[in-house]
Formats: sequence, C-alpha cells, structure tokens
Amino acid sequence: MLKTVDSYIDAHRDRYLEELKAFLRIPSISTAPEHKEDIARAAAYTAESLKKAGMENVEIIATEGHPLVYADWLHAPGKPTVLCYGHYDVQPPDPLDEWVSGPFDPTERDGNLYARGAADDKGQFYTHVKAVETLLAVNGSLPLNVKFLIEGEEEVGGESITAYVPENRDKLHADVALVSDTAMYAEGYPSLCTGLRGLIYAEIEAIGPSRDLHSGLYGGAAPNAVYALIELLAKAKNEDGIIQIPGIYDDVEPPTPAEKRSWESLPFSEEEFLAKEVGSTALTGEPGHNVLERVWARPTFEVHGIAGGFTAAGAKTVIPARATAKVSLRLVPKQDAEKVRAAFKKFVKENTPKGVRTTVRITASSPAVSVNPDHPAIRTAAKAFGEVFDRETAYISSGGSVPIVGDFDRHLGIPTVMMGLGLPDDGLHSPNEKFSLNNYYTGIKTVARFFQEYGASAS
Amino acid sequence: MLKTVDSYIDAHRDRYLEELKAFLRIPSISTAPEHKEDIARAAAYTAESLKKAGMENVEIIATEGHPLVYADWLHAPGKPTVLCYGHYDVQPPDPLDEWVSGPFDPTERDGNLYARGAADDKGQFYTHVKAVETLLAVNGSLPLNVKFLIEGEEEVGGESITAYVPENRDKLHADVALVSDTAMYAEGYPSLCTGLRGLIYAEIEAIGPSRDLHSGLYGGAAPNAVYALIELLAKAKNEDGIIQIPGIYDDVEPPTPAEKRSWESLPFSEEEFLAKEVGSTALTGEPGHNVLERVWARPTFEVHGIAGGFTAAGAKTVIPARATAKVSLRLVPKQDAEKVRAAFKKFVKENTPKGVRTTVRITASSPAVSVNPDHPAIRTAAKAFGEVFDRETAYISSGGSVPIVGDFDRHLGIPTVMMGLGLPDDGLHSPNEKFSLNNYYTGIKTVARFFQEYGASAS
Repeated sequence: MLKTVDSYIDAHRDRYLEELKAFLRIPSISTAPEHKEDIARAAAYTAESLKKAGMENVEIIATEGHPLVYADWLHAPGKPTVLCYGHYDVQPPDPLDEWVSGPFDPTERDGNLYARGAADDKGQFYTHVKAVETLLAVNGSLPLNVKFLIEGEEEVGGESITAYVPENRDKLHADVALVSDTAMYAEGYPSLCTGLRGLIYAEIEAIGPSRDLHSGLYGGAAPNAVYALIELLAKAKNEDGIIQIPGIYDDVEPPTPAEKRSWESLPFSEEEFLAKEVGSTALTGEPGHNVLERVWARPTFEVHGIAGGFTAAGAKTVIPARATAKVSLRLVPKQDAEKVRAAFKKFVKENTPKGVRTTVRITASSPAVSVNPDHPAIRTAAKAFGEVFDRETAYISSGGSVPIVGDFDRHLGIPTVMMGLGLPDDGLHSPNEKFSLNNYYTGIKTVARFFQEYGASAS
Repeated sequence: MLKTVDSYIDAHRDRYLEELKAFLRIPSISTAPEHKEDIARAAAYTAESLKKAGMENVEIIATEGHPLVYADWLHAPGKPTVLCYGHYDVQPPDPLDEWVSGPFDPTERDGNLYARGAADDKGQFYTHVKAVETLLAVNGSLPLNVKFLIEGEEEVGGESITAYVPENRDKLHADVALVSDTAMYAEGYPSLCTGLRGLIYAEIEAIGPSRDLHSGLYGGAAPNAVYALIELLAKAKNEDGIIQIPGIYDDVEPPTPAEKRSWESLPFSEEEFLAKEVGSTALTGEPGHNVLERVWARPTFEVHGIAGGFTAAGAKTVIPARATAKVSLRLVPKQDAEKVRAAFKKFVKENTPKGVRTTVRITASSPAVSVNPDHPAIRTAAKAFGEVFDRETAYISSGGSVPIVGDFDRHLGIPTVMMGLGLPDDGLHSPNEKFSLNNYYTGIKTVARFFQEYGASAS
C-alpha cells in the first residue's frame, strides 16, 4: 500500500508541481498593505486546494488581520488527530534586482523551484495537502483524523492565529500538530526539530533636533539623531558579540548533554558554512560556543535595518533630526519573553544619549519552544522520515521562530512534529529563495507515510 | 549720491523681489541628476540677470559638471577690482512634507521669503547683481571694477570651479573677493566672517554576508553589515563628543585672544540657541569649550545619513549584507586636510569589525580658511555694513565651509569679504529655508555702499 501511494505521487508529479507554481505566483506579502488583495487570493487558493484534496468543512475565517483557513477530515474514530499548520503569506522579495528569475515567477533550475515562498512556507505545507489528496485518492479514506489551520500573518507576528487558537480549543483539539516550516539539517539528512528560538521584534525611533540642521552651523553643539541611535545600538553587544543588556543571560541554560552529543554527531564544516552559506570573510559570535550552539541555543541581538538622514545619491551636510532602526532579540528555552522585553526597554532608556529622545515599539514577542523527542508521534514521524530518506532521522534545533508551536503547546497541550523539508541554503527571506523539487515530492511521501504509520501504531 | 542709490533701490523693491522669485522657482538641485535641465536654466537665468544689470562679457562656461557663469565690468582704471562669487545651485528639499509652502514656490510670510535657495545662496548673491544694476542705473558707471564668477556645484563639492580658478588666474585677477554665503551673527548685527571651517565628506560602505540572511537561522554566527557599520561609527566619538580618530586634534589651535574677546562680546543665550534653533532637549559637544567655540573653532565628526537592511513598514528578520553611511569631518585652521583624510581612512580600516569589508570614498575635501581683518577691503566693508545697519560690524567665524574662499586665497592670492546676509535661523539645508526681505533690500544697499566707499578710498 505504501508502494501504491508512492506510485500515485510519482504519477502526479507534474500536476502537483503546477498547482504549487500557481500558488507561488500570488505575491501574498503580508507586511505590505498594497498586497491585501493578493493575501485574499492566497487564502482562497489554499481553501480551494484543501477542497480539491478531499478535506471537508473548508472555511475561510475573517480576522482583524489576514484570514485563516480551516479544514478537517474526521472519519477515523478511535484514531489520533493530526493538526496540520502552515502559512500562505511570504516575506517581501526586496532587493528585487538580485533575483535571477522573478520572485513571483516560479522557475525550475538545477532540481530546484525558485520563488518567494517556495520553501517558506507554501511549498512545505503544500506537501501536507498533497499527502491528504494522495491518501484519499488511493485509499478512499485517511488512516487518522486530520485538521488544517493555515494562517496569513506568520511573517508579521501572527496576531490573528495567536488570538484564534485559545478561543477555539475544542475545534482544534488534536493529539499532535504537524508543521513543515523549518529546514532539514542538510540535503539527504532527515531531521526533526525539537527546539526553536523565540523572537522579540522592536522598532526604535530617535528624535534629536526639531528639524534637520546644517552641520557646518550646528556641528559640535547639536545632537545628531542618527549618531545617537548608533551610539545606543553599539552598546547592545561587545566586540565578541556578547549581549550587554543587563540580565539577558540570567535564565539561559546550556544545551543538555543529549543535545550536545546529537549536535556533535552531525556533519558540520565551519569552512563550508562560511563560504557557501554566509559568504563573508569570517564568522562572528560568542567565543566558547560552537556555531550550532550559537545559532540554536544562544540568544541574539540583531539590527535588521536602520534609516536616517540623507541617503540619496550625492552629498548633503545635515545633522539628522530623526532616525529609526528595526531590531530583534532571539530567545532560547527558559528565557522569559516579558522579562527580556522589559530589560530591553530599560536598556534603551538608560543608554539614550543626551539631547535625544527614543521610543521603543515591540511588534512581536514569542518565547522559545522545546519538544519531547520521546512522544509517540515524534518517534513515528522520525521513523517515517528516516525510511523515506533512507537515513536515520536526527534531532536538531532551529534558531528561527515558529511562534505557533508555542501556542499549540500552551493552549492545546500538544507537541508539534517539526518536519522541516527545506534545506539550509534555501535562501529564506533572501533573494532567490528556492525549494528542492526532490524534497517536495519526497516530502509528500514522508507525510503520507507518517499519517499511515501513526494511524496504524496508535489504533 | 548714497541717498539717490538707496532711493532707487527702494523704488524698485517689487521688481527686484519678483526677479529673485523667478530665480527661486528653478529647482536647481545640483546633487540630483534628474535636475540637470533646471541647472542649465538657473545658469541661463544668472547670465541673463547679469546682462540686464549692465555687466559685460557675460559667459556661460561649460564644465565637466554644471556650468559656471562669468561676467565683468572693467571701466574704472586705477580703481580696485572686486570678484563677486555666488552659487545658483541648491540643496535637495527633502523631507518635502515638512515645508509649509512648496520649496520652489517662493512665498512671503512675516517679512521673509520662503524657498529652497532663498538664503543659500540665490537670494544672497543676487544682492551683488542688484547693487551693480542700481549703481549703473543711477550713475551710469561703477566706482570700481567688478567681476562675477557664479558656480552651480557648491552643494556637491564644487569640482569645476576648483579646477577653473587656478587655470584662469589672469582672467580672475582682482584685489578682493566678495562672497555672501554665510549668516549675520544675529538679526540687526552686521558681521563679517573671518574664519571658515573646512570639510571632508566621505561615503562608507560595509559589506558582510554575500546576501541578506535569515536572522533566525544565522543569527549568532554571521556578521551583520549594518551592525558592523554601527560599531565602527560609534568608535569615532566618545560620550563627550570628543573625536577618537588618532591624531585628529594634533594641529588644532585655540582661538586667538582677540577672537575670544570678540566672540565673548557677542550676545549669545545658550537657552535660546537650544530652544529656538536646535529644538532638542539638550546641547551636546566637547566639555571645556563654549558653544561658539564648538561650532566655529573645533573639528567635528558627523554622520549625515545611514541606510541598510529592511526599513520599509512592517517586520523583516534579515541579517543585512550591506550598509552605507555618509559622514563628514569639519576642519579648523592649521589642520591639514590630507593628514586628516589619511587618519580617517586608517581609522576605518583598523576599526572595521571582523567578517565585514569596508570601503571609503572621499567626495569632497577643503581646508579651513581665515582672513586678515586688517585688510583695507575688509575694513571698508565692515564700515559700510555698519553704516547701513546702524551698528558696529562684528568679526565672527562660521562653522560651515565656503571652499571657494580657500581657492581664492591659494590661487589668486586675495582675501575674501564674507559679507553674510543670512540669519542663523534661515534653515539652510532644512525644510522652510527663508531669507529676510529686509536683509535682501538692505543687503543690496550695503554692497552698493561697499563698492562706492572701497572705490573712493582706494583711488
């Protein structure tokens, strides 16, 4: 039967790919107000895909932000229920001129599909949809109960789903969640993610003089909003990359010995990571922690963008009145998001240079999450994943955030199978984002097998 | 005769104002390539105004950049020659939404004329043109020889005039230059500027990873170009505003006792300067130097603009690959521009954080200038200025740069009468730039009187 399922997937590769491409053509950029209509189209496309797959009770749920899409298939009494999550929204594509093919013109090259959202997350959660479609087509029924909850605000803080989950505990009741929104450790290395960093995202604004001033006439005596922001931000980390916000490391714990062992067993080349992924002259970060620890198990402070003063071509000698920066803190397990938020705000207040006023606006906040690798669904998923990819599944962490995993844990009391089907060089949030075509097809097979084995094991 | 001249000016106020307004309507922004045609129109308007005033040999001189405008009137043998300088180019008007009336729609309000370039420098050098026009209309001749050299690149480094002056020493031969491109010390306080700071303007680019990276997946190990630039720039000054670039203060000398006395005699209120001009919560700058010293006699380091990473509305969690900043160093007399440039480049190189490459592009460089207050032309100008404004003329300095004054000194061997007719709150380089209408008319009278008295005294 596994073979029939795999054959069906192989036989329908082209259609499965074309349907994903049509999805990727919709520029559903959640942060850009001018793409509101595209967001609606992407939600409708998601609902339509679920209906065509055979899912029932398909619903587009209006929210104060972007709509949620729900669907279920509940005809396997006595069997467990899997809640599949994904997001149909994508990051902005800029800088546009660095894309080889258009971000919303999905293009195959070298075994990959290039498009914004190919891996993050349209291509990945579409494997769940296609696994359901395949199982229903081949068997006429599913081996367990399945619910889908897909959102359109993952890239902008996910406010609507964060409100929806605790208000719909019964509707969303399940034994485990399935999320494909992370990456495999490496190509051909099936891996389940059992730890995710949290995220606090903030915007800082600095206001100095009441207007831009001539730097000749006032330079030496008037505060400069850009320089004040630079001075402030420079104090957030020392030269070794150690965060200087007081109390920030109070609750940070080292990885467990089991985690350490597991991570050390993974193939990792710092030279390759530097050359192929980062592409700079050197890596940075805290001494005494290896790279995997730094990106999986250490908090970070990053400046994502800064703007202020005259930045067009040419020269203008102003003392800028105003400057803004977007920053984030990544959190690790045991760190309390509220405590970190407060510490950060206090830090900004205390380190704002004289003559300048600063304001901080927190736009997103979610704690880190860890999942118990001994849960039956996790063990079954690991087994299925390993069988399809023909290598033992590794347990890894991710430095990124999937805030919903924390919500499922807190409000539904369920763990999440984080079955990452992306690859580390997929270029999420960068130009030329891609998704491996092999991982797409093999991902569909893996999800189908997980459903079958989890349904069979837990009868 | 002075009375006749003044009466003529009074009788032609409206026309003199309308002709200035027409000039100000031309958006001759020298830094913006899309305004190239407006630059040509402003040069033509300048030439036309000189012709109508009665100047001869009017010439629009093509350069590799924006054209120069030359004119002369040389029919006073045995009398001194004054070389009048000005610039018809203006700063960009942004931020546009802060202008009460359009930057290129000159508008009278409360005795001022509001427009980009009203004070810097169209309105100011137009007083020279109108003084010549008046004297020729009233007397049929000028009391001395006059040359005009007007440029269109003052706001972008003035490369063309810098090349033109040393190549045209004979043509430009004169006894003194007249430049109205600075401000009076205060409204009603006639003042001649005898010191100007120099300027080194530079663009710094920082390159980190080869592309923008996802801060979740790489944060903690990958260099951040924006943060590296922040770290670098933050090292350029300490918390007291003292520049940390090694050697920068080596040749800096304190003001002379005469300068100190003169400056201390000027009315100055730190509270008013803070509240009315700067408009921030506190002043900044080096301890141990009063405000006038800080802006007139101390070098500065300023960041004029910074850009990098994601700065649009919303949130994007990138580690930026690239960041740029525009910075300047203001120089004071005795500082060697070449030595400072080298020290700055060395500082950037030595303080670039690891994992990041930086490049520095110097886009302008001019030393500070000081003028001998005992030169006959300076003394005569001070006398005329004081008579028209009915208060003794003070000798002041300016923190700004008028690079041409250094060129006239070096290549023509002549001092410059820096007869500032602007006011300190004119908002040069800011939104709502203005020029006092009274200073416009009284300025024309002052220039006419200077020409007459200098012509008479130096026969």
